[in-house]
Amino acid sequence: MSSNSPNHVLIVGSVAFDTVQTPAGRVERALGGAAVYSSVAASFFCPVRMVGVVGDDFPAEHMDFLRSRKIDTRGIQVIPGGKTFHWAGSYEGDMNQANTHATELNVFESFSPELPEDYKTSEFVFLANIDPTLQLHVLDQVAKPKLTACDTMNLWISIKKDALLEVLKRVDVVFINDAEARQLTGEVNLTRAAASIHKLGPKYVVLKKGEHGAMMYCTDRMCFAAAPYPLDAVADPTGAGDSFAGGFMGYLASTGEVSDANIRKAVVYGSTMASYNVQDFSLNRFKKLTIQDIDARYEEFKRIVFFEGI
Amino acid sequence: MSSNSPNHVLIVGSVAFDTVQTPAGRVERALGGAAVYSSVAASFFCPVRMVGVVGDDFPAEHMDFLRSRKIDTRGIQVIPGGKTFHWAGSYEGDMNQANTHATELNVFESFSPELPEDYKTSEFVFLANIDPTLQLHVLDQVAKPKLTACDTMNLWISIKKDALLEVLKRVDVVFINDAEARQLTGEVNLTRAAASIHKLGPKYVVLKKGEHGAMMYCTDRMCFAAAPYPLDAVADPTGAGDSFAGGFMGYLASTGEVSDANIRKAVVYGSTMASYNVQDFSLNRFKKLTIQDIDARYEEFKRIVFFEGI
Repeated sequence: MSSNSPNHVLIVGSVAFDTVQTPAGRVERALGGAAVYSSVAASFFCPVRMVGVVGDDFPAEHMDFLRSRKIDTRGIQVIPGGKTFHWAGSYEGDMNQANTHATELNVFESFSPELPEDYKTSEFVFLANIDPTLQLHVLDQVAKPKLTACDTMNLWISIKKDALLEVLKRVDVVFINDAEARQLTGEVNLTRAAASIHKLGPKYVVLKKGEHGAMMYCTDRMCFAAAPYPLDAVADPTGAGDSFAGGFMGYLASTGEVSDANIRKAVVYGSTMASYNVQDFSLNRFKKLTIQDIDARYEEFKRIVFFEGI
Repeated sequence: MSSNSPNHVLIVGSVAFDTVQTPAGRVERALGGAAVYSSVAASFFCPVRMVGVVGDDFPAEHMDFLRSRKIDTRGIQVIPGGKTFHWAGSYEGDMNQANTHATELNVFESFSPELPEDYKTSEFVFLANIDPTLQLHVLDQVAKPKLTACDTMNLWISIKKDALLEVLKRVDVVFINDAEARQLTGEVNLTRAAASIHKLGPKYVVLKKGEHGAMMYCTDRMCFAAAPYPLDAVADPTGAGDSFAGGFMGYLASTGEVSDANIRKAVVYGSTMASYNVQDFSLNRFKKLTIQDIDARYEEFKRIVFFEGI
């Protein structure tokens, strides 16, 4: 991988240890974090440049795994004597909502994402869920990207709304779940909520609805609906949204083409990656995943929604 | 309309006065009932034979409206001195759940659906949501229908489960919402819930998910997902499921072809009718609806889910 080759995806976000309990089981301090899920998902499609922070408790085997996925990890700061971010949570019932038990920010508390010089010309930029002031700091460092996208969460909508609105003015795509879209806009109706967010800046508003699939608002209308993949078992929904974003950005970067038509396919690749990710804990499903698996499920998505040729 | 022409839909269910409050407004004792919504929806596609019961307080204008839709109303019993079934309820927030304020069964309490002789050879039979013992009584009267379908509700799953299971053994299609599917099977995962219901008898399990669209389980797998239509306003969700079933059955009856491929289209016509119905209170949207409107929205559904040719 040459760092000068075109169409890398630059991904900035959290690297974490996750302790997760679901009806299907439990993992303790497993590899996680938004930047990890999205980078690994994107890596199936294109080279990835990753920016994050860990403590020196972060195992070499995790770093080796990221590198084995051809992820450029030079942007991951390792803080001597620091402890890696740790999230503990659980899911119940339909697993659409995470219950947070502990959030130990650790090295993340004073994190400021600084891009290695050659990262700054990345053409595809994904700002995973972090403090929007840090997302802005990343946007200030990149030069003329072809496509920028962000994720966010309820916390930032509550306590950093102004910075988040500034991010939304500056990105092309926002990934947001239905509850966050309602919280951000005050609109219960999801079509209206998406339209309101579209007016805040992003050309493409991708509404993630968990077990109900995804919808995209663009060019002044709700233009695309992606079906959920009918899984008969979900092990762990952690990282589903990040895997979605990674698949979406990775596919687009791999083609280099940003068009309404291609972005629809990106939503389906995103859905594909999310649907695989939730089938096991941590990054375990991705560790076994092949391009053939991805293509097969993408083809399944076609058959699932087909009823008559267009 | 000749009552001997092929491919009528026979519909049995409630005829009601509905008092409904939603964030968009309120109606008092407006025309409603599962058989009414589904019959009117079906009537856009094929002739309908309707079975139900009303009191002599049921206005002539409502009966005239049904007949203007070419619905055969000879199966509607009019009970002298009786009062028509009255439901009062409200919806809040995302309107996915009705809050029932009053259920006055009135003439419905002692209703036994008796089919006029020429109804008994109907080839397409829809048992709208009524006591499953009455649904069985209807099934006992029909001779070799080409396709039978039923709807149900949480109440019957709670208090008449055995009769409902008997109905499920005998119908080809069940329409059920996600909460009911979970209640009936004890499965939280909707794919598993649908698979469990499939094992109870119906060849096609149609899961209605309100604002999230619909999914269909058939031939041992979740085979089809229909997108939700992206409405930016919902006036009143009452009758959405019945309109869905009516559109589904009416379309199938109009073609006479029961195949997996055609049933996918039927799901989309069902979605189309449901999406129109919720745009106004009572039957008001259907009163203005044209075949051209239906075809236009059906075409929109194609564009909404399209990402790559199959």
